[in-house]
Amino acid sequence: MAGPPMPPRVAYQGEPGAFSEEAALGYFVRPETVALPTWRAVFEAVRDGATDAGVVPVESSLAGTIRESLDLLFEFDLPVVGETSVPVRLALLALPGQRIEEIGRVYSHAQALAQADAFLRARDWLVMTTYNTAGAAKLIAERAERGAAAIASPRVADLYGLEILAHDVQTGSDNRTRFAVLARGPLAGGWRRPETRATPAKTTLAFAVHNVPGSLWRCLGAFATRGVNLSWLESRPARTARWEYVFWADVDGDPAESVCGAALVELRQRCEMVRVLGTYPRAVED
Amino acid sequence: MAGPPMPPRVAYQGEPGAFSEEAALGYFVRPETVALPTWRAVFEAVRDGATDAGVVPVESSLAGTIRESLDLLFEFDLPVVGETSVPVRLALLALPGQRIEEIGRVYSHAQALAQADAFLRARDWLVMTTYNTAGAAKLIAERAERGAAAIASPRVADLYGLEILAHDVQTGSDNRTRFAVLARGPLAGGWRRPETRATPAKTTLAFAVHNVPGSLWRCLGAFATRGVNLSWLESRPARTARWEYVFWADVDGDPAESVCGAALVELRQRCEMVRVLGTYPRAVED
Repeated sequence: MAGPPMPPRVAYQGEPGAFSEEAALGYFVRPETVALPTWRAVFEAVRDGATDAGVVPVESSLAGTIRESLDLLFEFDLPVVGETSVPVRLALLALPGQRIEEIGRVYSHAQALAQADAFLRARDWLVMTTYNTAGAAKLIAERAERGAAAIASPRVADLYGLEILAHDVQTGSDNRTRFAVLARGPLAGGWRRPETRATPAKTTLAFAVHNVPGSLWRCLGAFATRGVNLSWLESRPARTARWEYVFWADVDGDPAESVCGAALVELRQRCEMVRVLGTYPRAVED
Repeated sequence: MAGPPMPPRVAYQGEPGAFSEEAALGYFVRPETVALPTWRAVFEAVRDGATDAGVVPVESSLAGTIRESLDLLFEFDLPVVGETSVPVRLALLALPGQRIEEIGRVYSHAQALAQADAFLRARDWLVMTTYNTAGAAKLIAERAERGAAAIASPRVADLYGLEILAHDVQTGSDNRTRFAVLARGPLAGGWRRPETRATPAKTTLAFAVHNVPGSLWRCLGAFATRGVNLSWLESRPARTARWEYVFWADVDGDPAESVCGAALVELRQRCEMVRVLGTYPRAVED
């Protein structure tokens, strides 16, 4: 008789306490999370079988697409098997006893710095970029660095023995980050929390249009004329020619269904290149 | 009798030697360039009349749109009166006598770091973000900081007494940055170099679509069905609702001409919001 199923090993970028770790913990059932130093290392771990899955951030509702992730999704061509979205609330953390007037330097990930732009603009601090938010907190704790603060999740204060100098330093209150879940193939039954499997399907695509007037419009028409909704469209430099682009889109639907499938057939006829990254249940959100 | 015309005062972000300064020097006739610490300060200088014009980077042909600039263009609503494009070649700079094996830290602007991604990936260096590329070089020179390198234009080596450890650390050889030229109104005759006035017109727009299937497609149809070319399309979070977007587009044409004008009338009918940022001659490129 088989024992209880092995928990999935799930790679994320950063340190314990990172929002990416939270994404993995919210999507999988009791995963064994594996912290890695870079997004590239997460893709490599999934590709090489060092982990069963990986989570990478793809979009912030405030700061926009995380373009490095799109470039890596394109480069590695690993299937996107799911998505998940976590609320992002940022706090200003520093060594115990520090006052905000004593701060002259702030460390965080570039995305978190962008999200705290209005807060930082009112202060004349030196801004230093780190690989992730929890890592910024760890750096201050390890160096016992006075005069410095980190912008990170309030959850990491306890993890690294820091104090919270200010809550909610992000712009706006409705700040979420969407994560893509990567794997080499379909996830084993029981690895995902049931609620992540119950939502309608969406499909992530990348496509390149011919460089003639109206070509993007004709490509989007493959979906629009069939009533298939696009929930997201992003452009990235194609790097094959100056000022040419690869478009990324999320469409509501599954190419295995007839309407979405017919749209994809038409898209392939109209485009120079189409790549389907994956079809998966939409993220559950409040 | 009037004396020679006053040269225009043109604001840019960064330090002498920055690519933004090069953009100002290439677009205007003998401008008096004004270095400011932030992009926001450039917008403020133009808005408040402290300078006649400003230049801000809007897109890298390798790394993509510079989103902070779009957000500021939207916030300040200053007319875009021109654009210019400069080739970006990046070098690795350090104190005289340093060898590349001695480097453990690298400073540069986030865009330049993104553009040197492949070069940096092969090295296990601590990566630190500065406000601009020339500022990274200045910081190393002022602190006489050993073990550190800056990624910046090779031109700044002489300015700050540094040596070049590696040339062309950017990915690819065809790397350009496009700059928007801002002013409170039309530029005085004679301020711009003649070649920047001789190219066909383009128009920069921002627009928000209704949140129904096919709405972006119907908006783009205003241009596509008239054969009006879009040379660029970008999406930014709307910040009014989660996962909604403002689109930015460059269209070839001038709304004062009948075809482009009719397209704009149709766009306004189909969109929730349309803002014309400016119509100006296209950048001259090799």
